[in-house]
Amino acid sequence: MKTQGVARRGRGRPPGESQTREAIVAEARRQFSELGYGRTTLRGIARGASVDPRLLLHYFGSKQELFTTSVELPIDPERVIEVVFGEGPDHVAANAARLLASVIDDPESRRPMLALLRAAVTEPEAANLVRRVLTERMLLPMASHVGGDRPELRASMMASSLVGLMVVRHVVGIEPLARASREELTRALEPVFEHYLRGDWVTPA
Amino acid sequence: MKTQGVARRGRGRPPGESQTREAIVAEARRQFSELGYGRTTLRGIARGASVDPRLLLHYFGSKQELFTTSVELPIDPERVIEVVFGEGPDHVAANAARLLASVIDDPESRRPMLALLRAAVTEPEAANLVRRVLTERMLLPMASHVGGDRPELRASMMASSLVGLMVVRHVVGIEPLARASREELTRALEPVFEHYLRGDWVTPA
Repeated sequence: MKTQGVARRGRGRPPGESQTREAIVAEARRQFSELGYGRTTLRGIARGASVDPRLLLHYFGSKQELFTTSVELPIDPERVIEVVFGEGPDHVAANAARLLASVIDDPESRRPMLALLRAAVTEPEAANLVRRVLTERMLLPMASHVGGDRPELRASMMASSLVGLMVVRHVVGIEPLARASREELTRALEPVFEHYLRGDWVTPA
Repeated sequence: MKTQGVARRGRGRPPGESQTREAIVAEARRQFSELGYGRTTLRGIARGASVDPRLLLHYFGSKQELFTTSVELPIDPERVIEVVFGEGPDHVAANAARLLASVIDDPESRRPMLALLRAAVTEPEAANLVRRVLTERMLLPMASHVGGDRPELRASMMASSLVGLMVVRHVVGIEPLARASREELTRALEPVFEHYLRGDWVTPA
C-alpha cells in the first residue's frame, strides 16, 4: 500500500489519495474480520471510513477485489523465500520448520491467518478468494523454489501442516499441543518438511 | 443414542421416549450446523422437533450438553483404535495414514468434521465444547494406545495433520492437494505419523 501511495504522490496525484485508500483498506480489514465476508458491504465500509461509496468502486472495482487487497498475510512471501531457501536445499526443511513454528507461536502473525481461516470456513465465496490469494501470493512463489517433482503439491502439504497446527493449537486449543514449545514444534516439523519436500511420495505428474 | 433408547425401553419407559430424544438430537444437529452455535436456541430446536421446550431441558440439561451430545464424529473412536492399533506398533503409522486418507477422501465422513470446524472457528464457546468432545472421545482414547513419552502430544500432532489436510484440501480447496489421490495422501502421511508417534522430538514431560 505505502509504496504505491508514495509512487502516486510522486506522479502528482492529490496528496490525500493514498491516505484515503489506506483508510478504506484498514476499515475493510476490520469489517471483513468482524462481520465475515457475507455481511460486509461496500456501503458499510464507506460509512466506517467516512468516504463516498463511489470512491470504493473507483479504487477497487468490487467487493471481491477489496477483500483480496485487504487480506494480510502473516509474513511477506519474499521474506519467507529468503529465510527458507537462502541457505540451499539441505537447509530448507530446518529453516521452514523454524519459521513456521515462530509464525504459529506469535499472536501477531496468527491473527491474519485466523481471519483468513474464519472467512474460508464460513463462506464459500470467501473461500474462493482466500484460495486465490494464498495460491498466487504464497504457494506458487514458494513452489517455484521447491523444485523436484510436483512442487505445488509439496508446498501445499507443508501449508496443511501450518493450518492444522494453527487450528488444533489455537482455535480448538487441544491441550498438550497448546503448551508445546516453539523448539518442540520445530523438532516435530523438520523431518516432516524434509519428507514433504524431497520424499518420494508423489506420483509423477 | 440407540443403545440408550433400547435400554430405557427395557426398563419400562414409555416407548416414544427414545424416538423423541433422537428427533431432538437430529434437529439440534441440523440447526447447530446451519445456524452456528450462537444463533441456535433450545426454543428453536424444540419448535423444529415439534416438542415441548421443557423436554429438552429434561433430557439434556443445557444447550451445551445438547451440543456435545449431538456432535457427530467422522468415525467411531473404538473402530479407529481397532483399525489403527490392531496389528501392533510397527503397523500403527501405516494403518493410521490409510485410515486418515480414507476419512479425508470421503464426503460423508468429512461433513461432521467440517461442522465441528465451522463451530470452533466462529465461536469461542463452541470451540470449548469441541475441544472437550475431541479430547474426551477421540484424543485420550487414542493416546492411551500410543505409548511412549507424552502420547497426548503425539496424538494431537497427528490430529493436526488431519485438520490441516481437511482445511487446505476441502475448505480452501488448494488445487494440487484437492486432486491428490487417496494413495498419494497415504504415502505422504505414513512417515509423518511414524515420526509423530515414535520420533524423539518431544521434550520428556
